[in-house]
Amino acid sequence: MSLPYGRAFNFSAGPSCLPIEVLEEAKEQLLNYKGTGVSVMEMSHRSKPYEQIIGEAEQDLRTLLGVPEGYKVLFLQGGASLHFSMIPMSFLPEGASADYIVTGSWGKKAVEAAKMVGSANVVYDAKATNYDRTPKLAEVAATPGAAYIHFTSNETIQGVDFFEDPSTPGDWVCDMSSDILSRPVDVSRYAMIYAGAQKNMGPAGAVAVIVSDAFLDKAPASTHPMLDYRLQAENGSMYNTPPCWTVYICGLVYKWLLKTGGLEARAEINRRKAQVIYDAIDGSGGFYKGHAQPANRSWMNLTFTLPDDDTTARFIAEAKANGLAELKGHRSVGGCRASVYNAFPEEGCRVLADFMTDFAQRA
Amino acid sequence: MSLPYGRAFNFSAGPSCLPIEVLEEAKEQLLNYKGTGVSVMEMSHRSKPYEQIIGEAEQDLRTLLGVPEGYKVLFLQGGASLHFSMIPMSFLPEGASADYIVTGSWGKKAVEAAKMVGSANVVYDAKATNYDRTPKLAEVAATPGAAYIHFTSNETIQGVDFFEDPSTPGDWVCDMSSDILSRPVDVSRYAMIYAGAQKNMGPAGAVAVIVSDAFLDKAPASTHPMLDYRLQAENGSMYNTPPCWTVYICGLVYKWLLKTGGLEARAEINRRKAQVIYDAIDGSGGFYKGHAQPANRSWMNLTFTLPDDDTTARFIAEAKANGLAELKGHRSVGGCRASVYNAFPEEGCRVLADFMTDFAQRA
Repeated sequence: MSLPYGRAFNFSAGPSCLPIEVLEEAKEQLLNYKGTGVSVMEMSHRSKPYEQIIGEAEQDLRTLLGVPEGYKVLFLQGGASLHFSMIPMSFLPEGASADYIVTGSWGKKAVEAAKMVGSANVVYDAKATNYDRTPKLAEVAATPGAAYIHFTSNETIQGVDFFEDPSTPGDWVCDMSSDILSRPVDVSRYAMIYAGAQKNMGPAGAVAVIVSDAFLDKAPASTHPMLDYRLQAENGSMYNTPPCWTVYICGLVYKWLLKTGGLEARAEINRRKAQVIYDAIDGSGGFYKGHAQPANRSWMNLTFTLPDDDTTARFIAEAKANGLAELKGHRSVGGCRASVYNAFPEEGCRVLADFMTDFAQRA
Repeated sequence: MSLPYGRAFNFSAGPSCLPIEVLEEAKEQLLNYKGTGVSVMEMSHRSKPYEQIIGEAEQDLRTLLGVPEGYKVLFLQGGASLHFSMIPMSFLPEGASADYIVTGSWGKKAVEAAKMVGSANVVYDAKATNYDRTPKLAEVAATPGAAYIHFTSNETIQGVDFFEDPSTPGDWVCDMSSDILSRPVDVSRYAMIYAGAQKNMGPAGAVAVIVSDAFLDKAPASTHPMLDYRLQAENGSMYNTPPCWTVYICGLVYKWLLKTGGLEARAEINRRKAQVIYDAIDGSGGFYKGHAQPANRSWMNLTFTLPDDDTTARFIAEAKANGLAELKGHRSVGGCRASVYNAFPEEGCRVLADFMTDFAQRA
């Protein structure tokens, strides 16, 4: 089959595919944004048009997630990786300890960064089963007095997702980089949510941060400006020049999500998209094996293995020749990974499922 | 006069105008980069096409600046502001002191960040003359034993430029955010050069860092990953996902600079571009007053005042109506600022100069 503009079905885990409508609009506006005479890439971040772009992006993200009063919404830099460090620098005071739930590679990196700052307590670690599952959040209580409790809602590499919001006490901090906006969440359950843009929101280079005022008040009075959530909040994400283009594209994605029914509708689509591929796995008589336990199977990153390395390599090469790109899994899990974020077209999931079934029959 | 695509002459101080050829190429490739089937915004940073993009960007930047052997060239995040903090965190060990030359607003911010880490010694400060000049670098010797000596080659807000490389001993660290690539420099004179992309290289969201191996060896063995120059160097700027699109556009700008004669040719053009506007200032019989001392007048950011605030406001409004945008100066200097970075067309400088002369005669 052939896609418009000669495009491929792009299963990249991030940076990853964007809605074609968003790319078309960005292309249309590239040399002259709405009659301003300049590209968004050339626009002063202090100009009225750019203030409107970042203001609408913030407002639309608030609407999509139903962010309640009393939360700041920021667009910062450095990827989730910088925030792995900024969070304990800001919220793990000397003498205190923070809890970490580790369900995959990114959670591990988060706890490593916390340990460089102070005491971090791993309250759950799925290492024994090679990170194929998540606990029930209600069963992983925060340690009394913990500065906060951190988890990774969806592990991109392992493809496991909690599919739930916290319901027990504590300042819950969540890295939602790879499943933010894939379904509704109850923001009021969290002290802080953060997410790199480059999976479910836009290009690489921005991190969305949603933080409650009460949690923000616990940050130290002063730290290095670019590591200071409070200062960034006071300056509306513009202490210095923000990643303007990335925020602009995120804003277009938010408008696309609103226009297509918001997160309730998106969750239904994502559930269907994932199901068709998991059905191909489960219906293959064991040819494909899902990595994640069924209850924790991610809708965003679908991880599976094939009988052996040669077959896997042949599968990936044949898929690529058929316009199904970037299916190689991460080395720590092996096999294949199909990342089907919000912008990945449903049709591509059916094409992959059909290809998988056909390949298994021929193999 | 009318420009292609209804574009304006954009005097923004940053983000600022990009070469029209670069924008046209980015537009052309926006939905499908060179037959890969994906946009650069959607491309895995670990993919071969992206490795080629960032690899060529690095190589072209090395070629343009004549970076000698023994230097790393990195593309990082956080703007120069994050590096104001990362530099002392990495290179100002306990018990040592670093020297800072302060010739404007950005140099002040750099020294403030250093003081949060340790001892910073201001060896020159142009505050008494409201930052209208720079010293001769040879006359500002580094303190014996200083960890490094820092300066801002061009102050964007005040519009003053050193126009020289260091020639005395010491580990010279330079923030070149607003004049990098505007003329040739002798990189071998520096321990480290860094520059935000959004003035003379590309969109906001990346910082180019050029650092000598010898200086890098002085960094601590381990720090937070995203604040660790050494780790970033070991990972070829890809410890985590880089700001892919920004680096891609920077790469296109580097190719444009190479194709149009490199930095020798660019310096000639920049000198001419600035001169035509400074001539309009000096030929106005005192109607316009340049902020910077003549020897230190920036080629990139041209700062001048008018007789009073009302006249200034009228000048800016009339200029805008004539397609000359973003001429308002920064509040700390007042008046006007015309930023005419590499990509700003020479013709626009003539148009502004003519407008200035005409306006002064009418006023």
